[in-house]
Amino acid sequence: MSEEVKPESVSLCPVSIATNPERELLCIFGTGDLGRSLGQRLLQSGYRLVYGSRRPHSCGPLPPGAQVLSHEAAAQSASLIFLCVHREHYEFLESLAPQLKDKVLVDVSNNLKKNLYPEANAEYLQRLIPRAMVVKAFNTLSAWALQNGPSDANRQVYLCGNSTTAKQAVADIATKLGFTVLDRGSLSAARELEDFPLQLFPEWRLPIRLAFGLTAFFFFYLLIRDVVYAYVQEGKDNSFRIMVSLANKVFPIVSLIMLALCYLPGVIAAFLQLYRGTKYKRFPDWLDRWMLCRKQMGLLALAFASLHVLYTLIIPIRYYVRYRLAANTISQIMENKTSKFDTTMAWRTDSYYSVGILGFGLYLLLGISSLPSVSNALSWREFTFIQSKLGYLTLFICTFHTYLYGWDKFLHKYKWYMPPSYMLCLVVPSMVLLLKLLLLLPCVDKSLTHIRQGWERTDPEDATRKSLLTFHTECSPFPQQIGPGKVTP
Amino acid sequence: MSEEVKPESVSLCPVSIATNPERELLCIFGTGDLGRSLGQRLLQSGYRLVYGSRRPHSCGPLPPGAQVLSHEAAAQSASLIFLCVHREHYEFLESLAPQLKDKVLVDVSNNLKKNLYPEANAEYLQRLIPRAMVVKAFNTLSAWALQNGPSDANRQVYLCGNSTTAKQAVADIATKLGFTVLDRGSLSAARELEDFPLQLFPEWRLPIRLAFGLTAFFFFYLLIRDVVYAYVQEGKDNSFRIMVSLANKVFPIVSLIMLALCYLPGVIAAFLQLYRGTKYKRFPDWLDRWMLCRKQMGLLALAFASLHVLYTLIIPIRYYVRYRLAANTISQIMENKTSKFDTTMAWRTDSYYSVGILGFGLYLLLGISSLPSVSNALSWREFTFIQSKLGYLTLFICTFHTYLYGWDKFLHKYKWYMPPSYMLCLVVPSMVLLLKLLLLLPCVDKSLTHIRQGWERTDPEDATRKSLLTFHTECSPFPQQIGPGKVTP
Amino acid sequence: MSEEVKPESVSLCPVSIATNPERELLCIFGTGDLGRSLGQRLLQSGYRLVYGSRRPHSCGPLPPGAQVLSHEAAAQSASLIFLCVHREHYEFLESLAPQLKDKVLVDVSNNLKKNLYPEANAEYLQRLIPRAMVVKAFNTLSAWALQNGPSDANRQVYLCGNSTTAKQAVADIATKLGFTVLDRGSLSAARELEDFPLQLFPEWRLPIRLAFGLTAFFFFYLLIRDVVYAYVQEGKDNSFRIMVSLANKVFPIVSLIMLALCYLPGVIAAFLQLYRGTKYKRFPDWLDRWMLCRKQMGLLALAFASLHVLYTLIIPIRYYVRYRLAANTISQIMENKTSKFDTTMAWRTDSYYSVGILGFGLYLLLGISSLPSVSNALSWREFTFIQSKLGYLTLFICTFHTYLYGWDKFLHKYKWYMPPSYMLCLVVPSMVLLLKLLLLLPCVDKSLTHIRQGWERTDPEDATRKSLLTFHTECSPFPQQIGPGKVTP
Repeated sequence: MSEEVKPESVSLCPVSIATNPERELLCIFGTGDLGRSLGQRLLQSGYRLVYGSRRPHSCGPLPPGAQVLSHEAAAQSASLIFLCVHREHYEFLESLAPQLKDKVLVDVSNNLKKNLYPEANAEYLQRLIPRAMVVKAFNTLSAWALQNGPSDANRQVYLCGNSTTAKQAVADIATKLGFTVLDRGSLSAARELEDFPLQLFPEWRLPIRLAFGLTAFFFFYLLIRDVVYAYVQEGKDNSFRIMVSLANKVFPIVSLIMLALCYLPGVIAAFLQLYRGTKYKRFPDWLDRWMLCRKQMGLLALAFASLHVLYTLIIPIRYYVRYRLAANTISQIMENKTSKFDTTMAWRTDSYYSVGILGFGLYLLLGISSLPSVSNALSWREFTFIQSKLGYLTLFICTFHTYLYGWDKFLHKYKWYMPPSYMLCLVVPSMVLLLKLLLLLPCVDKSLTHIRQGWERTDPEDATRKSLLTFHTECSPFPQQIGPGKVTP
Repeated sequence: MSEEVKPESVSLCPVSIATNPERELLCIFGTGDLGRSLGQRLLQSGYRLVYGSRRPHSCGPLPPGAQVLSHEAAAQSASLIFLCVHREHYEFLESLAPQLKDKVLVDVSNNLKKNLYPEANAEYLQRLIPRAMVVKAFNTLSAWALQNGPSDANRQVYLCGNSTTAKQAVADIATKLGFTVLDRGSLSAARELEDFPLQLFPEWRLPIRLAFGLTAFFFFYLLIRDVVYAYVQEGKDNSFRIMVSLANKVFPIVSLIMLALCYLPGVIAAFLQLYRGTKYKRFPDWLDRWMLCRKQMGLLALAFASLHVLYTLIIPIRYYVRYRLAANTISQIMENKTSKFDTTMAWRTDSYYSVGILGFGLYLLLGISSLPSVSNALSWREFTFIQSKLGYLTLFICTFHTYLYGWDKFLHKYKWYMPPSYMLCLVVPSMVLLLKLLLLLPCVDKSLTHIRQGWERTDPEDATRKSLLTFHTECSPFPQQIGPGKVTP
Repeated sequence: MSEEVKPESVSLCPVSIATNPERELLCIFGTGDLGRSLGQRLLQSGYRLVYGSRRPHSCGPLPPGAQVLSHEAAAQSASLIFLCVHREHYEFLESLAPQLKDKVLVDVSNNLKKNLYPEANAEYLQRLIPRAMVVKAFNTLSAWALQNGPSDANRQVYLCGNSTTAKQAVADIATKLGFTVLDRGSLSAARELEDFPLQLFPEWRLPIRLAFGLTAFFFFYLLIRDVVYAYVQEGKDNSFRIMVSLANKVFPIVSLIMLALCYLPGVIAAFLQLYRGTKYKRFPDWLDRWMLCRKQMGLLALAFASLHVLYTLIIPIRYYVRYRLAANTISQIMENKTSKFDTTMAWRTDSYYSVGILGFGLYLLLGISSLPSVSNALSWREFTFIQSKLGYLTLFICTFHTYLYGWDKFLHKYKWYMPPSYMLCLVVPSMVLLLKLLLLLPCVDKSLTHIRQGWERTDPEDATRKSLLTFHTECSPFPQQIGPGKVTP
């Protein structure tokens, strides 16, 4: 009787557990390019291999050492089958259902577009052959990585499936091929895995469009104000300014506005919660989307700030600047009146530079702490401290830097009724800082903390529940700082 | 009989192993904010959910789709229970011990302070209900991440527990919610996990205080020497220098000293080992603490060096500098004597800049190799090569840069008996380099290598053992370079 | 009967599964330095420990709390044994085979050199004692990490072995000691693990040699052209130029050539595939090796570009530059003729700087996306987009930057028949860009895509197969962009 029990318990073990190091036999359905590349690699890693093909005798050159059989025979010979077949041809597998029973089916397919089919390829496969153990795996790798092993963006094999033993078997193969395995749970994650290789920076699109739009707007604004105006009114050709002077005005402006826009949705959300008196109401969609791309907006803002720094630092090697300085010196001598040293001017400009450098330093710190490996090493209290406390400090310092730049020139210098660009760019940051200041007032802060701990204002009957809630939520000692979440009631 | 064996073996399997994809039932104790948020997320991820509550009929609004039962009934219905209850109320669980037998209890609690209780919450829980399988998990996530899934610093779920099956079941849920799971071993790691979310850069405190202290000291030193002295002795108002000139003296000084202080403890430890003749004696506590924060000190030093670079690069756009250069040119013309080009001066200043840039480049390299993902990809021989060999090279080059800056002005230029600041800042680095040079002498190096391979001088009787030791330690071919460890005898 | 089944199934469980939290007993063979350090650490982590020694009564001081027995007795007492013994002494283990049967043997050994023995230490051990379960582990850690727990480059324990239960037992110990475990598959990976700690940037050697060679060549070329020529022909001592001016010519030249050399092998490979009409032929070895170090070449190119940026930015604070500017101004006044502002000159130089900054920005982006944690977070479509599309854009912009620098001075300015250095450095990049342009021609691009999807020209008979292939390869929707792989036919 114990004889009967044993085989079963063994069949549950991952295939590689066998102490007998006889080379394991795997099967690949499909003798196309993908099947050939994968087979090559499996053979090199010490597996035995059999191909399943519709025309076993005329399927072209395959890696030496591999056998080719009919689908039926191949399926019967191995306990794990890679499907290197296009989804459109899965149907033929239905007729193989008896042979595929209790086999591990590895679905490596991808689609050409998102949402081409109502269900994920792997889920469709599982539905076709309900008694097989379908595992979605390897589809996030490039063909290059499947042929040659791990390289840069191809170190990780994501897999998912409903059977943990099947997943373990596939994971063993993947580690043997040199990859790192990340288990994404049950087969319901298959769609996510299938969408992954198709994506091209989805979360960067909105921020990039925004940055592009702001850049274009301020470029033309400044073009009119600095170049066209001078040409029309004074007949001067300032067009060479486009390359450096204009760029060095556009970049910091866009950077500061983008940084402020990172912190605006959090402030809006807080006021919304205060107004509604609860955190259990869903935010409007635009606010949700805005909050989800704050990191990308911040990184773009940092990129623009870095360009601003480089453009500023090359100022003294520009031909135009050198020419002007020399011309200035010469005119002083010609007119025989030396300008006096202005201590206020020295204080102001040096402060301006110094504050700017400190702001940029903090900016960089925010960027570095956004690197995945750094943020993973932080506790979220630390991460919140950097991104929220230091973030607002950065915004404040950079805004202050711009005010110092403007100094006393805020209310004149209009050209064609257009205010200087730095005035325009200060609107959003000043507003965000002001609103944040309001939120920091003790009375407002206290209400908000209550709400974020689960308290609800519009619920006058159950006072008992409130007390219950406040005690329970102490479990999570830190009221959430970055911004509240969407919870559908 | 085999019928009887089967149910048992199944109960050991992680819950998600069941090929039957019926949605799994989980239980949450506690209907507070945390319980509600977690429940919401579990329901969204496809689990069925039952709440256990003291007052099942008056516990306020819960996520739609969840049942509410008494604690007893809820515990009986599910095999895995999340405890979203404050530690102070764990006692009531004792009465539920029969229902909780063999159940997986997930302790997600945190405390408001470290060391509030003699034992970790999860260990206390295990002691209360010895027959349950307690798993500590999810407590390092923010409430935001529990509600909305993984985000920046919230990708990883740390868990620990004494039962691997229970851990596997919790790990499956965590991956299904989208998190990456890191197993921290048995329940004795619970305290560490509970302390993690409370920490705020503990290992950065000493270095930050040190940097702050050095910055303050040198700021006031230079304030007196450069500003107050000029005002008192010469009546000149140099105060504007504070913003850039002073800062650009303080930052490099602090940076160089901090870098030297990274390498000083290793040198001290080596001499201590040479003096003691063994590596099996514990270092004094201060030395241990010092050695543990070298990385943070180095990164702060890099931050200060970066500020120094930026402050240096803006020099030529400063109003003061432009004014001085123009005034210089004008005075040359007025007095009609042009200064002659000084080749030595050109060599010296260019060398000074060039060496500085190379030093900063190496500095950056050290910083980049400290990024977790980069250092993880290095073998420790490579890491040691960069941090030790290139580290000392960086220290040497930066010290040399400072000597070039000083040039021949070392022994005069005292003001009020205060030497120039760069002289002060050279003391520690020169000393470290000199001591390191001593350690590299062949005879000293040989003794030290012996000691670090386990040889002990003060043990004259067993010559046999020594020979044994030297052969065994060849297993680890690289004598440890960075610094020796604390081993209590 | 079920009584007989149980013990077996338990013996398959990892050792830590036992709900009984009694401290587990481990064994260490070898009382040398490594054995002592590891034992210390295991005891601190709550394990009980027994040492196996040849002379149990005279093996010197061991960590307090550990027992010392003969090898036989020690082996019998524990189910898991760490081997802290040099490989040369493994033979004595053969006599212990009966005691070691079914035990987990952890091989932590390393060799002093690569390829010292025909087989890996762990495989040799497994061959000696076939009935033990050998696990290779912990050998990639430094002695320091074994004594004191994880630190920077020592967070990960790589392990491999043929038995998953044995690996699980070792993994449990490693996580309990605080390490992260990475399973590298079966024991055939042991050699790789044993080679890992011996390596010192193997993949960086070729790029570093190349960079060094190019740097040396251009340094001497420019030394002759800029310094020696001026000295011989004009008797001027320009030697001070070596430190900054020469360096700032050498660095960008080497950087641009290295960047172009990153993209040249991909272009060569594409033409080779076009010429051969198949992707199933192995590339020549030199091309393979070249392609494998492109990332390192790119990072070195970025390092040189960064130096170029810093060297450029310090130009205006150089003594020589300030002297020249002042002398220029003075001579204008003396000769009483002010130079006129040249708009073309302003346009040209500003464009030159602006394009350079944008190129450097893209360069940095390429570098950041090469960080392991960043590239892991990218889908490979995204990674390919950055490294290939943005990479070529970077190459184009940097080449354009250099053309703008040259402007109209390309065909004169020869000295001793030596063309200016920027002309030399433009050869390779221009060629690469030209060839890439050819590859982008629709007709060429189409053929290449076909070939990379598995199509073969030199195979006229089986038209059927071709159609089969093109449908199969749609599984992997993205034709591989970076460069084709080696597949032995």
